[in-house]
Amino acid sequence: MTSTTLKGQPLDRPILDSMLRRRMFYTPSFEIYGGVAGLFDYGPPGCALLANIVDLWRKHFILEEDMLEVDCTALTPAEVLKTSGHVDKFADWMCKDPKNGEILRADHFVEEVLGARLKGDKEARGLKVEEKEEDAKKKKKKSKTTEAVKLDDAVVQEYEEILAKIDNYNGEELGQLIKKYELKNPNTGVEPSPPVAFNLMFQTAIGPSSNAPSYLRPETAQGQFLNFAKLLEFNQHQMPFASASIGKSFRNEISPRAGLLRVREFLMAEIEHYVDPEGGKRHARFDEVKDIEVVLLNRHTQLAGQTTVEKVAIGKAVANGTVDNETLGYFLARIQLFLQKIGIDQSKLRFRQHMANEMAHYAADCWDAELLTSYGWVECVGCADRSAYDLTVHAKKTGAPLIVREKLEKPLAIEEWQIDLDKKKFGPYFKKDGKTVETAVEALPQDKREALAQALQADGKITIDVEGVGNGKVEISKDLIVIERRTRVEHTREFTPNVVEPSFGLGRILYALIEHNYWTRGTEGGDEARGVLSFPPPVAPTKVLLVPLSSNESFKPLLKHMSHKLRILGVSSRVDDSSASIGKRYSRNDELGTPLGITIDFQSVKDSTFTLRDRDSTKQVRADEDTILAAIKALTEGTKVWSDVEKELPAFESQDAEVPVR
Amino acid sequence: MTSTTLKGQPLDRPILDSMLRRRMFYTPSFEIYGGVAGLFDYGPPGCALLANIVDLWRKHFILEEDMLEVDCTALTPAEVLKTSGHVDKFADWMCKDPKNGEILRADHFVEEVLGARLKGDKEARGLKVEEKEEDAKKKKKKSKTTEAVKLDDAVVQEYEEILAKIDNYNGEELGQLIKKYELKNPNTGVEPSPPVAFNLMFQTAIGPSSNAPSYLRPETAQGQFLNFAKLLEFNQHQMPFASASIGKSFRNEISPRAGLLRVREFLMAEIEHYVDPEGGKRHARFDEVKDIEVVLLNRHTQLAGQTTVEKVAIGKAVANGTVDNETLGYFLARIQLFLQKIGIDQSKLRFRQHMANEMAHYAADCWDAELLTSYGWVECVGCADRSAYDLTVHAKKTGAPLIVREKLEKPLAIEEWQIDLDKKKFGPYFKKDGKTVETAVEALPQDKREALAQALQADGKITIDVEGVGNGKVEISKDLIVIERRTRVEHTREFTPNVVEPSFGLGRILYALIEHNYWTRGTEGGDEARGVLSFPPPVAPTKVLLVPLSSNESFKPLLKHMSHKLRILGVSSRVDDSSASIGKRYSRNDELGTPLGITIDFQSVKDSTFTLRDRDSTKQVRADEDTILAAIKALTEGTKVWSDVEKELPAFESQDAEVPVR
Repeated sequence: MTSTTLKGQPLDRPILDSMLRRRMFYTPSFEIYGGVAGLFDYGPPGCALLANIVDLWRKHFILEEDMLEVDCTALTPAEVLKTSGHVDKFADWMCKDPKNGEILRADHFVEEVLGARLKGDKEARGLKVEEKEEDAKKKKKKSKTTEAVKLDDAVVQEYEEILAKIDNYNGEELGQLIKKYELKNPNTGVEPSPPVAFNLMFQTAIGPSSNAPSYLRPETAQGQFLNFAKLLEFNQHQMPFASASIGKSFRNEISPRAGLLRVREFLMAEIEHYVDPEGGKRHARFDEVKDIEVVLLNRHTQLAGQTTVEKVAIGKAVANGTVDNETLGYFLARIQLFLQKIGIDQSKLRFRQHMANEMAHYAADCWDAELLTSYGWVECVGCADRSAYDLTVHAKKTGAPLIVREKLEKPLAIEEWQIDLDKKKFGPYFKKDGKTVETAVEALPQDKREALAQALQADGKITIDVEGVGNGKVEISKDLIVIERRTRVEHTREFTPNVVEPSFGLGRILYALIEHNYWTRGTEGGDEARGVLSFPPPVAPTKVLLVPLSSNESFKPLLKHMSHKLRILGVSSRVDDSSASIGKRYSRNDELGTPLGITIDFQSVKDSTFTLRDRDSTKQVRADEDTILAAIKALTEGTKVWSDVEKELPAFESQDAEVPVR
Repeated sequence: MTSTTLKGQPLDRPILDSMLRRRMFYTPSFEIYGGVAGLFDYGPPGCALLANIVDLWRKHFILEEDMLEVDCTALTPAEVLKTSGHVDKFADWMCKDPKNGEILRADHFVEEVLGARLKGDKEARGLKVEEKEEDAKKKKKKSKTTEAVKLDDAVVQEYEEILAKIDNYNGEELGQLIKKYELKNPNTGVEPSPPVAFNLMFQTAIGPSSNAPSYLRPETAQGQFLNFAKLLEFNQHQMPFASASIGKSFRNEISPRAGLLRVREFLMAEIEHYVDPEGGKRHARFDEVKDIEVVLLNRHTQLAGQTTVEKVAIGKAVANGTVDNETLGYFLARIQLFLQKIGIDQSKLRFRQHMANEMAHYAADCWDAELLTSYGWVECVGCADRSAYDLTVHAKKTGAPLIVREKLEKPLAIEEWQIDLDKKKFGPYFKKDGKTVETAVEALPQDKREALAQALQADGKITIDVEGVGNGKVEISKDLIVIERRTRVEHTREFTPNVVEPSFGLGRILYALIEHNYWTRGTEGGDEARGVLSFPPPVAPTKVLLVPLSSNESFKPLLKHMSHKLRILGVSSRVDDSSASIGKRYSRNDELGTPLGITIDFQSVKDSTFTLRDRDSTKQVRADEDTILAAIKALTEGTKVWSDVEKELPAFESQDAEVPVR
């Protein structure tokens, strides 16, 4: 599938990449030291874009639903992550090339080699293969390139099915694929070693005595779970509720390559929504979203080696069981609304269900919001039903009561078989085995007690299994024990909440957002080299560019005045008073995604009128200061769009503003 | 010095602490696992308070001065921090108790033992010693408590002088103090081992091959420096400019105890302002702040064992050299304005200059903004002149041009002694030594060239030192060399900018802000146990509390309606519809620092009027919806204060709202 720009042009990633670095959206960290794979710094526009995404996220989720935001530490003692299962299971499969020592991520390696074979097959069949500039570059470095070898039709189908469920293989299975298909490292022609697990957490030690091993958190979730009891109290014991956290997490990726999409340090936003597992995990606001249509790729389709999606109302998907429950469904819809709000192309969004082997060790069901980019479909938001897993394991390990106690509206009368022991006689009779026998008796399940009660009445004694006492069978006579059916009344109910967790990789979303909003003026018959980032105003890094016509001194007070006015309105602006032509300056800001521009010219000095320019259409209007400021406010708040403004205000035909750039 | 509340009451820290934990401002991280010293999580109100401080910081510094915000990674390769000096020098002095293995931070240990002796002396002299509850608790754990032993007057003075300059001692000197005064660990009665350096950085490894040692950054600064060349270009090569960063940093403190004030993971906000070192580091906006009065504790006073401060206009302090330059002075004033804006008590703020030994290895001059808390004076903002140190060492290590090239307005004519070699003859004459001799000639300094020119003219040859050639002396005759005074014209000037760095510990500021805004209703004859946090509205975690009179169903639509209205205004609110009395609910929100409260009662249902309550005075007014909302907007934006609102709107005397709480 070819990725496209906002206007449907084929997307040329190397050109976009170089634009993003030139405009300092992001840059490899420590570049003057040679850089470190998987680490990136955000420059000023990237930083502002990310901050705006975070701000909208906080409003859309936290404020809208009164979630309890917490900020927990990244440093985490090993014990916590041992309990959560991360020390044992949070790993990727890694192979080593025995010849050159190269380390390969096993699933990526299988994908790469099978993908190359399929491409070679296409070539051999005389089909057109898209050749990206980047691929061409890569080839130079590699010792072997794709060979045009035709494959059997059956083999092609086999490969395609493997690739469709590549995320479902464990290490052993990946090793079998490597053996079976004789997959060789293209750099050496050698088959790599069998996959071994590599834990993805960064390890360190807290304190001077280095006896406190710890990790950098791989997710923000654990800190939220550990605070569950306090949060529940803070929420005055009302259920359901959610906590949320925005913060950095760390994963020691084996061999990160895909730019911002696979990094070792990244900003996450995670919600832990605690819900009563009884009653089907319903959600009070599900009705508000039930008609929203989502694009789903379910697990059965994938296991069949297919990638066909279905578009369906979320209400229906929950009703027919494709999506497990209302709470999960509610958040899928809310995730979609959020992505829509920030400017993600809805035709490049799908929800993919995890397959059984792929699911994290804690998850009961999981859907990923995937966004289509030039790297293919990329997981940007995970929405997992973690069941009661985390709260249960931490409670068991620490003894902390990570549960909800609910007063029952109507006390519950439970009929059950109860056992009374005559403690006075029981102890002396069984002597040192007393406690063991007592524990075994109390552990007798309800379904056995009825039969035992009948036996006791019939025989005057019962025989039960007690491991470690005598021959493992113990006889208890009726003078020591009574078994009766009675009614017990319960006034409170205790339960461990289940957790539904929408988890956002904000850096990935930011990158997809950039690709979805990128295009070049070439589509409109203009200069192909003039890139534009058409971010919606609320997320745009800067809202307004202020451009004086020239470096004439008389413009300076007006620049200062307009900056000040915009700051009061809460609208971010930047001045570009460099000596470049107005056209060049606007073009630079199109690349930065600045939606609006104000030109200050000699007319402005005379009568305080200004021109306002729209980034996307490059059209301009002219009006007095207050009118221009009001239009800017309406446009940045989203209460108006440019076509409204164009209708209301007189157009301005510039002689200078949009001259060719190069 | 006793610390006090906002209303001047003695501050009872254990009571405040328990309130802050009960209201979940912060909580020890991993508490159900026993906790880890120096790690804290922020709960919902702490999180919101911190976010508001960050937001105001960003507006006050970044937006106000168009700083370039960057977001760099915390993971940092060892090589970078080796170059910056942190691997070798970023350490504290640590002693070990040979008896029980306890690890002590040397300076804190000396402070503690000498402090205890001074206290014992006061007791022996019959002076009143403040005994804090917390101290009493600590004592129980310790084997030895303060002994009432009178000291010589001279000894008392010696101890006090040592404590005044405790930050100025290095490890050896601290060791000497321990020996000289026979300082024993109070827990064992044993003298600890001599201090050794303990590096404060957390170490880890990046990538699967573990051959990439790295650290978690101890400050955000290095990432900013490494991006200097890109930032300069982004700023279109205009100087001066500043970059800024808000992010987590990590320090492996030896034995952290003082709550939020000494933590191992913390949020910093740092500015790196790049300034031309020539011309006295002037600042274009210094005039705007020059009359602002600051409280200074200079280094000479401290070295004399004193802590006397002076209050002086920053303009004067720069003029008389107390503060080194305008840029440093400008930022001290701006720091003060920021702290004032968020609600720091200005009478509990001073700027303390670092003493020579205390200064970080990179600093040329440094002032700390210290805030008075119940832990004493605490460094919350550092403002260092890092000179050209960082850019120079990174440029030298990597070869990257971390410099500014400035086109000279007027080309510079430089008269100098120039040397021309006759290359054609020179090479064949010196043969294999040619290159060495040439390098030595070119390295000749200006002050030697004049004499050599004269010698050449007089003797027809010169003799220069060239190490490694012959006997180290080389003769060059006038047919090989010409030395002449000529004029060279320079069109550009190259320089390494100096850096002035205001660096904010946001967690410490948050804690000091809490102490400065805390008081109890006891001061007004009310309940001593009713704590209040009188945060200014812009930083308050939540602005408005919505309280329905009871759980009556008819209030629910109004609650929802008002929540919605406030959300549109951008004012954060929370509903408390618990069954507690109105008074109790308000009291809970006084502890959370919520400045305003809206009560919804039966009258509201009838006529859409609401009461608005002021947290600080507990006074209430009543008006219709729009009037109440307008008042809230004005109060939270700071355009009005409560006394304005009280004058404009009719007072409301509640029968229920302020009944006793317990």
